[in-house]
Amino acid sequence: MITPDTVWNDIAKIRAAGPLVHNITNFVVMNSTANALLAIGASPIMAHAEEEMEELAAIVGALVLNIGTLSTPWVQSMLKAGRAARARNIPVILDPVGAGASKLRTDAAVRILNEAEPTIVRGNASEIMTLASAALGTGADGGAKGVDSAHGSDKAMDAAGALAREKGCVTVVSGAVDIATDGSQTLFVNNGDPLMTRVTGMGCAATALIGAFAAVNPDALAAAGGAMAAMGVAGETAAHKADGPGSFQVHFLDALYRLGEADLQEHLNTAA
Amino acid sequence: MITPDTVWNDIAKIRAAGPLVHNITNFVVMNSTANALLAIGASPIMAHAEEEMEELAAIVGALVLNIGTLSTPWVQSMLKAGRAARARNIPVILDPVGAGASKLRTDAAVRILNEAEPTIVRGNASEIMTLASAALGTGADGGAKGVDSAHGSDKAMDAAGALAREKGCVTVVSGAVDIATDGSQTLFVNNGDPLMTRVTGMGCAATALIGAFAAVNPDALAAAGGAMAAMGVAGETAAHKADGPGSFQVHFLDALYRLGEADLQEHLNTAA
Amino acid sequence: MITPDTVWNDIAKIRAAGPLVHNITNFVVMNSTANALLAIGASPIMAHAEEEMEELAAIVGALVLNIGTLSTPWVQSMLKAGRAARARNIPVILDPVGAGASKLRTDAAVRILNEAEPTIVRGNASEIMTLASAALGTGADGGAKGVDSAHGSDKAMDAAGALAREKGCVTVVSGAVDIATDGSQTLFVNNGDPLMTRVTGMGCAATALIGAFAAVNPDALAAAGGAMAAMGVAGETAAHKADGPGSFQVHFLDALYRLGEADLQEHLNTAA
Repeated sequence: MITPDTVWNDIAKIRAAGPLVHNITNFVVMNSTANALLAIGASPIMAHAEEEMEELAAIVGALVLNIGTLSTPWVQSMLKAGRAARARNIPVILDPVGAGASKLRTDAAVRILNEAEPTIVRGNASEIMTLASAALGTGADGGAKGVDSAHGSDKAMDAAGALAREKGCVTVVSGAVDIATDGSQTLFVNNGDPLMTRVTGMGCAATALIGAFAAVNPDALAAAGGAMAAMGVAGETAAHKADGPGSFQVHFLDALYRLGEADLQEHLNTAA
Repeated sequence: MITPDTVWNDIAKIRAAGPLVHNITNFVVMNSTANALLAIGASPIMAHAEEEMEELAAIVGALVLNIGTLSTPWVQSMLKAGRAARARNIPVILDPVGAGASKLRTDAAVRILNEAEPTIVRGNASEIMTLASAALGTGADGGAKGVDSAHGSDKAMDAAGALAREKGCVTVVSGAVDIATDGSQTLFVNNGDPLMTRVTGMGCAATALIGAFAAVNPDALAAAGGAMAAMGVAGETAAHKADGPGSFQVHFLDALYRLGEADLQEHLNTAA
Repeated sequence: MITPDTVWNDIAKIRAAGPLVHNITNFVVMNSTANALLAIGASPIMAHAEEEMEELAAIVGALVLNIGTLSTPWVQSMLKAGRAARARNIPVILDPVGAGASKLRTDAAVRILNEAEPTIVRGNASEIMTLASAALGTGADGGAKGVDSAHGSDKAMDAAGALAREKGCVTVVSGAVDIATDGSQTLFVNNGDPLMTRVTGMGCAATALIGAFAAVNPDALAAAGGAMAAMGVAGETAAHKADGPGSFQVHFLDALYRLGEADLQEHLNTAA
């Protein structure tokens, strides 16, 4: 379970240790993702060249794989980085952006799931439903609307649980309520704001923050829940001050940077 | 012709339908373009892998092709996506960024013009003059200054009209006064602010918004004019609040998100 | 030596001439770098296709090479662009991002140093120490922490001087105190704010601004020092107004745009 205390403990560790988080991510969010990691106190490195994947695994605390602007050579680098990370017991986080929108994306997500064996998978409801259906051969597919979800997160509860149990990962479904499950225990985070859906890369930022939390907390479920809690509380703080999605982004980075124990105690709204 | 009512009608449709707009665009503006589309109410997808171009054409409402950080493999994807979109009668919008700055860019822009048969082409005066000269073999070239224009939009009136007539597209020339023409009718939008030239990707955002408008309005000239109107009015609102190009960007996204019928009625300044 | 007057003189020239600065840079910072160049008054062009490198050299005032998200084909373009620029006596600025984090990056930085013969090299302490050690075969390597420095800039004084003398370039080490040296004269800029380390791409923006200054000032040491001065003073102004790294970025671009002679006279803190 996560509480304001456990989340705060993780954030304090991130700020003290400044863990390196290696991201192979999409072109759209490279800047905003790096800034979210810096704001929470981690140290991002964005690198995709196959030649440097193994060396980087020797120095980083987590690996984040995100297929948002996929091409085939990048999948090779993701697989190589994933294997190198797993060999060193470094947590691997997968964001199957747009799984279901094209066969290329669905297939790449399944292949990374099978070969890089991610510790944590985070997607929206459509992505998680598609991934579970394609990887496990069961359940309804996700009916993705491009890279946006066609469903609320609750629709993906069964898919998330099945993925977690069959693949031995923690699965996170983000939405109005965020869900994190290891297949037996399930956490719910009721924070955030609808304005977050009008800003690109908020899901990708969540996945990257999961990397930062997983770098300092070996309990993958608590790390995933803690990152979603930080996202949600910072998102609420930012939305409260914002006039729209432009000012939201500014306040969001400020809120992540300033996120304190009192903010979590006052606003964090979880269930289990 | 466009009026506050017609523009508002398009915006209301975009917000209600949330059309998917597929962008194959440059690395510089992927984030800001996606955010502009989200702010107006559309749903962006950024994807460039050749393998997924045909599938995406089946689900999107418009295709935006932008050659701002061109390389040869991306041109292949643009051509494939363009053909798939045309086959499904989906509007294709071309932004010939930097046409005239290098042969690679000029040639790619001409090839996309000829093979993807864009519904609407938007550029600055230099780009449109270069493209008309290279594609039609007539007129002065554009004397581009890198990716910035060497001329006011009025200098490109003839080129824009010729392109529109010869290629059966609507041509938009953006500048202090924005011009949109189908070769017989011509619209002028007198909104915007000089600060917009101190922010990268404002032209690219305009092109992407044209995609969103064209996805809900089959009248290409009205869609193009409507998008330029939304850009211009939101830009004026933002410039009025901004202290420089940093705060401008923030206010611009907020203004697109909040753009209402009254803003258009109060500020829209068009001529025909 | 640099003074408020010399820095102001360079800025006035940049604003009057709007020099084109060609950047082959990393995906993370393309947008923020272009916006920093626009804010100071220069005109950025981001382009990496090998086919257009020579043509662009004919129209630009400076070339900036940044290896932050390196891959092998991009190194080829950087070398080609570098040779074309040197042949035309255009200043070349190298940012060896992450040199020391992987062999690929260290080797690429050394190769660009040797073949493109940059006029100015700017990095953090770890990067400059790594580059000097790898290129000259002397001194301690930099012990990079990913793309962040493990050391203060003073630790890299000897490495910076040796690089400058052996390679005939100006070397800049950025940090709490920025150092610029041609191997005999050395400048120190004591401006800036720690919040700048919580925003991605501030070092890359500094390198790009050096390009803008070098485009208008043939004295490479003064150009490098002037750009660091502008960064530092704008950074202080922005940090004073900011609540965190999100609002810092907004105020930073505004401050670059508004940077005036009085700001430099009041805040610039240099030594030689």
